[in-house]
Amino acid sequence: MTEATGTDSGPENPASPDDAFHVFDTTLRDGAQREGINLTVADKLTIARHLDDFGVGFIEGGWPGANPRDTEFFARARQEIDFKHAQLVAFGATRRAGAKAADDPQVKALVDAGAPVVTLVAKSHDRHVELALRTTLDENLAMIADTVSYLREQGRRVFVDCEHFFDGYRANPAYAKSVVRTAAEAGADVVILCDTNGGMLPAQVQAVVATVLADTGARLGIHAQDDTGCAVANTLAAVDAGATHVQCTANGYGERVGNANLFPVVAALELKYGKSVLPAGALSEMTRISHAIAEVVNLTPSTHQPYVGVSAFAHKAGLHASAIKVDPDLYQHIDPERVGNTMRMLVSDMAGRASVELKGKELGVDLGGDRELVGRVVERIKERELQGYSYEAADASFELLLREEAEGRPRRYFRTESWRAIVEDRPDGTHANEATVKLWAKGERIVATAEGNGPVHALDRALRVGLERIYPQLAALDLVDYKVRILEGKHGTSSTTRTLISTSDGTGEWSTVGVADNVIAASWQALEDAYTYGLLRAGVEPAE
Amino acid sequence: MTEATGTDSGPENPASPDDAFHVFDTTLRDGAQREGINLTVADKLTIARHLDDFGVGFIEGGWPGANPRDTEFFARARQEIDFKHAQLVAFGATRRAGAKAADDPQVKALVDAGAPVVTLVAKSHDRHVELALRTTLDENLAMIADTVSYLREQGRRVFVDCEHFFDGYRANPAYAKSVVRTAAEAGADVVILCDTNGGMLPAQVQAVVATVLADTGARLGIHAQDDTGCAVANTLAAVDAGATHVQCTANGYGERVGNANLFPVVAALELKYGKSVLPAGALSEMTRISHAIAEVVNLTPSTHQPYVGVSAFAHKAGLHASAIKVDPDLYQHIDPERVGNTMRMLVSDMAGRASVELKGKELGVDLGGDRELVGRVVERIKERELQGYSYEAADASFELLLREEAEGRPRRYFRTESWRAIVEDRPDGTHANEATVKLWAKGERIVATAEGNGPVHALDRALRVGLERIYPQLAALDLVDYKVRILEGKHGTSSTTRTLISTSDGTGEWSTVGVADNVIAASWQALEDAYTYGLLRAGVEPAE
Repeated sequence: MTEATGTDSGPENPASPDDAFHVFDTTLRDGAQREGINLTVADKLTIARHLDDFGVGFIEGGWPGANPRDTEFFARARQEIDFKHAQLVAFGATRRAGAKAADDPQVKALVDAGAPVVTLVAKSHDRHVELALRTTLDENLAMIADTVSYLREQGRRVFVDCEHFFDGYRANPAYAKSVVRTAAEAGADVVILCDTNGGMLPAQVQAVVATVLADTGARLGIHAQDDTGCAVANTLAAVDAGATHVQCTANGYGERVGNANLFPVVAALELKYGKSVLPAGALSEMTRISHAIAEVVNLTPSTHQPYVGVSAFAHKAGLHASAIKVDPDLYQHIDPERVGNTMRMLVSDMAGRASVELKGKELGVDLGGDRELVGRVVERIKERELQGYSYEAADASFELLLREEAEGRPRRYFRTESWRAIVEDRPDGTHANEATVKLWAKGERIVATAEGNGPVHALDRALRVGLERIYPQLAALDLVDYKVRILEGKHGTSSTTRTLISTSDGTGEWSTVGVADNVIAASWQALEDAYTYGLLRAGVEPAE
Repeated sequence: MTEATGTDSGPENPASPDDAFHVFDTTLRDGAQREGINLTVADKLTIARHLDDFGVGFIEGGWPGANPRDTEFFARARQEIDFKHAQLVAFGATRRAGAKAADDPQVKALVDAGAPVVTLVAKSHDRHVELALRTTLDENLAMIADTVSYLREQGRRVFVDCEHFFDGYRANPAYAKSVVRTAAEAGADVVILCDTNGGMLPAQVQAVVATVLADTGARLGIHAQDDTGCAVANTLAAVDAGATHVQCTANGYGERVGNANLFPVVAALELKYGKSVLPAGALSEMTRISHAIAEVVNLTPSTHQPYVGVSAFAHKAGLHASAIKVDPDLYQHIDPERVGNTMRMLVSDMAGRASVELKGKELGVDLGGDRELVGRVVERIKERELQGYSYEAADASFELLLREEAEGRPRRYFRTESWRAIVEDRPDGTHANEATVKLWAKGERIVATAEGNGPVHALDRALRVGLERIYPQLAALDLVDYKVRILEGKHGTSSTTRTLISTSDGTGEWSTVGVADNVIAASWQALEDAYTYGLLRAGVEPAE
């Protein structure tokens, strides 16, 4: 964008027709406060692209000036991203006490960031003004008015976050409302009431938002933290009371418990309120985008997140499983495809026969109503789950087990005689990882050795080196994910270990499981299943 | 208990004085439907004890008759647990269509369970009656009336869960209400409105509960699923509308997304509503009990769970960190001690100097306002976090780093020359795990070899075997937890690995971190820090 100067409202940021309701994302600023998140500039750019694809109206990118990475983010975002939907927002504070906004380097950095919109955080709780800002209540109002006016003169659209608003309103409602009025009168387009400490409940939020709206006439927004587990409901309660701007973060990331989760908030607005707050078609990308952002921040996607979790439409109860055969809509609140998710039937000893039959059908393995066969499968699953196996997340291992019972013997392309992995830490600090496997395939004995980045990688490579001549199809397979779970967590390093491996052949992905008393042996089992299933998928005939 | 027969209300279950409001836990029944949970009878007994300690009024133990484990649970709970607060509840369905409750084996199993209270699930959505139950609307009412009456005659207190109530109410409000009336008139003490598919929002729940209460006069309860992310708020909305019985599960476990989470619901009722719903003093046990139950079900406690998560009162933002020095209550919605949790300051490159200083003070390492030193610590943390280290969960590794910078050199009790781990899978299917370490301590070169259950266990034992003669204090140390996290999940088995090890000396527990390109090397680093910190704690003087 080109920098606008001296106009009330720069021509580069006209209020769009859908400006009537704002979906404002603050994953890159407030979400990054979550314990365990540490974003690089590249991460932030990638997340911004995902959020823009999803169609949020505003992306708060960080605090330029306060953090060098955020300054760099704004510089690169302007050059590298051609936003389709979103406007970029710079976050910062009101000017220092006793100075002029025009002379404040922190405020200058906000202008320099070049974002069309600025969110200013302002104190609205009297004690915070006195104890944290260490200034007077009147000076705080002057700081707000002066900073908003100055940024408006610089052609910026301004939103004002009233920090600790709800606690402040309880302590001193008159002062809290004067902050809202001051911000609006100075030219802020939206004044956001923040439940910074997250202690509110929906009924309280609704009452306060309604009163403040009636008393000030300002356009109001809501920023809720999830400390009572009600951030989504608090956000919706504010909308019910007349707020037209919601601040959220992807997957609810944020400090302490987190922020209002963007995904259930927009899903409720779109699907329950019937309000169009995203571009057409965007909602069905929600599951993908939620998982993609989790990937970038390097957190495992929450399996139990509303709408987008892998368990969100997973049915386990035997009671439900049999009824779902009749009509799936009886047992789900929305069609999962509307949010890009899918219904899943889980295999578990609780579920019993109905689930195994349904799962067999889903996998295309005909159990033909063979009660004895289904019973045998249920028994084996019970027994294996007792040992620590989990088939809920390992469809391919489950299918191999199912086929083994249905066909009377396991699918086998090779047989393991033995293997060995050696990890060596050398005096110079480097590591050597070497694995040797001894296998039988098509009547031939194979001995292969390989090195790798770690012992499992070395085993994986030795297995491929040994088998690829006999099964060239293995060249197309790629291990794409590897998870380790220590079971019985209270036994230190002598616990049982479960590994899950995801493998891809370019057209599909499957997961396999291994359980053993050590991580290498568990990984080997999952590798064996992974390659066996890959060969099965490729249509290769078993030949041990 | 002794079996009561033929009386309206057995003398063994008088309504207690606090019967006016029910905290009803269904972790053992509905919570167990969560993907990944698979409870043994012993697990269920342990969880029941924790819930009773916490002081819930009712513990729904399962469905006797439908599941052999649940039948056994009721038999053993009656013999083995002397409940201090809770009454045990058996869950089951109304009798089959066209039969008598007295002749129905499923209903008989409910009586045989010997629990003083029975929850009956009843259909209240007309389509479910027709499609899933395959009977008429009138017969469904007869099934409810007959089963409730029969159980009352057997001396049981009866609650009726109206499955799919809210969806049913939308489809056919008159029929849904007739189910409530029928249950109440037949003698059910509480009729529970269930949002089985979890699609409701608080405003809808509040409106429906208020109307049903006004129209039927029945005592109402609420059972909310979390599919919209609003289960806690929906539960509170029902209480606002007059419900006096809340059904929840520990940690929100349950099918799909989960159930209303017991902990934020009771915390809101106690701390925000000022309602006494637990015995005095119980709330401050909440964090401990939440984590203990997670341990039993073998799920990592959710770090970001409201009130009880390890992050729930953790502060990362540099802005907040400096203000918290002034007054912690400005930045938390409740005193964390009220729920048995604690405030934590996080170490992270976002937090900057203020956090490092506060953390140093927390650990008793005097940084003496040395700006240059604090800057060096911040720099090293940044650099190490970039490599994948995380100090937020590894206080002991952080303290070692802090001391190294403060004291000018690392605390060292031994130096590693090299090590080697071998894992061998033998033709007979057994595994051999052997490790050799070469160390220097007090000027002496030590070579030690040991076997273990896995390669890390073998390394751990070789390290102890080698060092225990020189440092007998190591005998008191015990590895109590071991976690593996694969970073950059999309690179298969060649990813970076982070391990976290928790070690105990009987009086305290500490965590250490290691990062490397393979799990064994990462574990070795965490082990080195674990033992170094243990010796430091024991007051041993460094002597490399």
